[in-house]
Amino acid sequence: MSLLARADLEQLDRTDPLAHMRDQFDLPRGVIYLDGNSLGPPPRGVAARIARVATHEWGNGLIRSWTDAGWLTLSTSIAEKIARLVGAEPGSVAVGDSTSINLFKLLGGALAARPGRKILSEKANFPTDLYIAEGLIRHLGRGHRLQLVAAETIAAAIDDDTAVVMLTHVNYRTGAMYDMAAITAAAHARDALILWDLSHSVGAVPVDLAKAGADLAVGCGYKYLNGGPGAPAFLYIAPYLLDSLPLPITGWLGHADPFAFEASYRPAAGITRALTGTPPILSLTALDAGVDVASQAPIEAIRTKSLQQIELFIQLVEQECGDSLRLVTPREAERRGSQVCFAHPDAGAIMQMLVDRGVIGDFRPPDILRFGIAPLYLSYTNLWDAVALISGMLNENPFTQRAERH
Amino acid sequence: MSLLARADLEQLDRTDPLAHMRDQFDLPRGVIYLDGNSLGPPPRGVAARIARVATHEWGNGLIRSWTDAGWLTLSTSIAEKIARLVGAEPGSVAVGDSTSINLFKLLGGALAARPGRKILSEKANFPTDLYIAEGLIRHLGRGHRLQLVAAETIAAAIDDDTAVVMLTHVNYRTGAMYDMAAITAAAHARDALILWDLSHSVGAVPVDLAKAGADLAVGCGYKYLNGGPGAPAFLYIAPYLLDSLPLPITGWLGHADPFAFEASYRPAAGITRALTGTPPILSLTALDAGVDVASQAPIEAIRTKSLQQIELFIQLVEQECGDSLRLVTPREAERRGSQVCFAHPDAGAIMQMLVDRGVIGDFRPPDILRFGIAPLYLSYTNLWDAVALISGMLNENPFTQRAERH
Repeated sequence: MSLLARADLEQLDRTDPLAHMRDQFDLPRGVIYLDGNSLGPPPRGVAARIARVATHEWGNGLIRSWTDAGWLTLSTSIAEKIARLVGAEPGSVAVGDSTSINLFKLLGGALAARPGRKILSEKANFPTDLYIAEGLIRHLGRGHRLQLVAAETIAAAIDDDTAVVMLTHVNYRTGAMYDMAAITAAAHARDALILWDLSHSVGAVPVDLAKAGADLAVGCGYKYLNGGPGAPAFLYIAPYLLDSLPLPITGWLGHADPFAFEASYRPAAGITRALTGTPPILSLTALDAGVDVASQAPIEAIRTKSLQQIELFIQLVEQECGDSLRLVTPREAERRGSQVCFAHPDAGAIMQMLVDRGVIGDFRPPDILRFGIAPLYLSYTNLWDAVALISGMLNENPFTQRAERH
Repeated sequence: MSLLARADLEQLDRTDPLAHMRDQFDLPRGVIYLDGNSLGPPPRGVAARIARVATHEWGNGLIRSWTDAGWLTLSTSIAEKIARLVGAEPGSVAVGDSTSINLFKLLGGALAARPGRKILSEKANFPTDLYIAEGLIRHLGRGHRLQLVAAETIAAAIDDDTAVVMLTHVNYRTGAMYDMAAITAAAHARDALILWDLSHSVGAVPVDLAKAGADLAVGCGYKYLNGGPGAPAFLYIAPYLLDSLPLPITGWLGHADPFAFEASYRPAAGITRALTGTPPILSLTALDAGVDVASQAPIEAIRTKSLQQIELFIQLVEQECGDSLRLVTPREAERRGSQVCFAHPDAGAIMQMLVDRGVIGDFRPPDILRFGIAPLYLSYTNLWDAVALISGMLNENPFTQRAERH
């Protein structure tokens, strides 16, 4: 493979079919943003849109805006847009609460649907997924078990005692991606349910929940959906389960007729029953803007550019940094999501220096440099400039020596 | 009592020590807003403040704002302000999620702390409180029971089989208010916990959780706290319970060290353990503005004006409308919150006509006209003008005849 030059990347930018999408975002000058998998940047104009909602709908409309401004149906309309991004059937996605709360709802439902059986997950799953499972099991006090295994042994660990397999589709630390259809089939072969956490997938990689036959899913609104810090999350319940899954949290917005103020709970038809409290309109407004932008580009084009950008990033790191960074993300395209991670003993200090100089990625303990690849606003020359900075930094600083003292 | 004239109310406005507070809100012209107990209006400047957060903190700061802009501690600082509004000890209030979710957390904790015993509540409690309790009990599947009685028999219904007494301090339909200290003492006499829903109290009536010896509480951010549609809610856990109450939902923001990404849950010290997911910064920003405004006026001054405004409202209705409206709110000042409600068979149609003509209150089925009294922005002449409209409407329309056909 011949050496890459900056001119090669400039050429790729000139022919990038997604190049125009960058104008849909407000990104600060002098920053190369490789952390959209932690917090996506604001869609252009979102500040003005929220301000309008606050001034006109909240301020002028006041309580009337629940009906007149469509507040009561806002979360449903966002949910339908997200459904299209994850291959979910219409009416199978609900938007609201946090990813953690949604995990609790669905895991609670799964344990009720498969009483007495265990939750199976991956040791290296995102912590809140594991914490929520732990808390739920302790709270139920019925001897359920949370079994954690390594990613590569998940399929083999599914047995007749498994209630639900809970996995994050794309791992937050390594970027490794599961084969959704294969693991889903393995779960179903043992009559277990599958729950996919799509936090690092939605808007970044093609997801087809219906085609994979998935039962349950949750996902985050503030990463590749660019919905704003702490944006509302979403959940998915396969249509065949909608009427029978016993959800533990039954709030008034999930009632068949919330404004009849009946004394006893009657679940709403369909996915609406998964809603709980009064929807947060200001946060939903930002999420709606983010989902709209994410919906403008075909996911296949996003995926193509993402894979190419990661390949180039790896190639540039190998070319410019030698072997001082160890690739952690799988090399095979189909086994990774939309981030690229390298291990280095001084990852924390390196990332802090990068951030200080405008290349924003993430440090994940103990030793991971994590770079999120968001093709909607990341250019090819961004990659060159980021790696040039990393390389210069590694050459100028005694990181290796410091690492040896560990 | 002599008849009231509009001039009397104008005089009260001139000497109202809270009159200046109205300038802290953006209220549309031509509207008399008697629905702040459903959705408070925006604090002045809140739209610009959220837009600044979106532009500068989210847009320019990006992921760095979690630390640099104080996002990670925002909910804690709001919680401490709310603690002062409800007489809670420092470090005993957490802000986040919805009232419904917070009810689930605390009721789940209460049933774990008093295993096998029942939840006692009021038949006419706000529905989501009852729905959450129902769902929790069904989900636990351990034979817990939800017992509902009339408000006046609550104290007598507390027995040794009661795990927790869950009550809304000020009733959403009638405005009737419990004696918090007395009911709390009655619960404690039977070793039951008490959980107060302060949704219609906080910012409107004096609340002293610590003095009453309350164990648990939740409350809403979008009523008298003016935190915006669907604003985050809060919860309170008495300090003596903080370390021992087993919370069912254990998310990563409640972990002792969230960013260590440990595989197993370790609760944070103190009230932080009650947090769950990533905090919704845009919604919290609006709530912070609302809580700041609510904190500017002494609650005693708010209560004094509220009671006087309700007295005058009742007096005006009796003077102008005769006996066509039946008072539902208790007449005794100490037994009511900050709303006044009247029953009429055609309440729904009447309220719709009032709203169409700029007097915004609420209809609560089957027959309640509900008027929220928010002394921070409600003038005395507002009361006169509202009752004048109601009276004219009752005189001009054949409501009574229509009612007889029911």
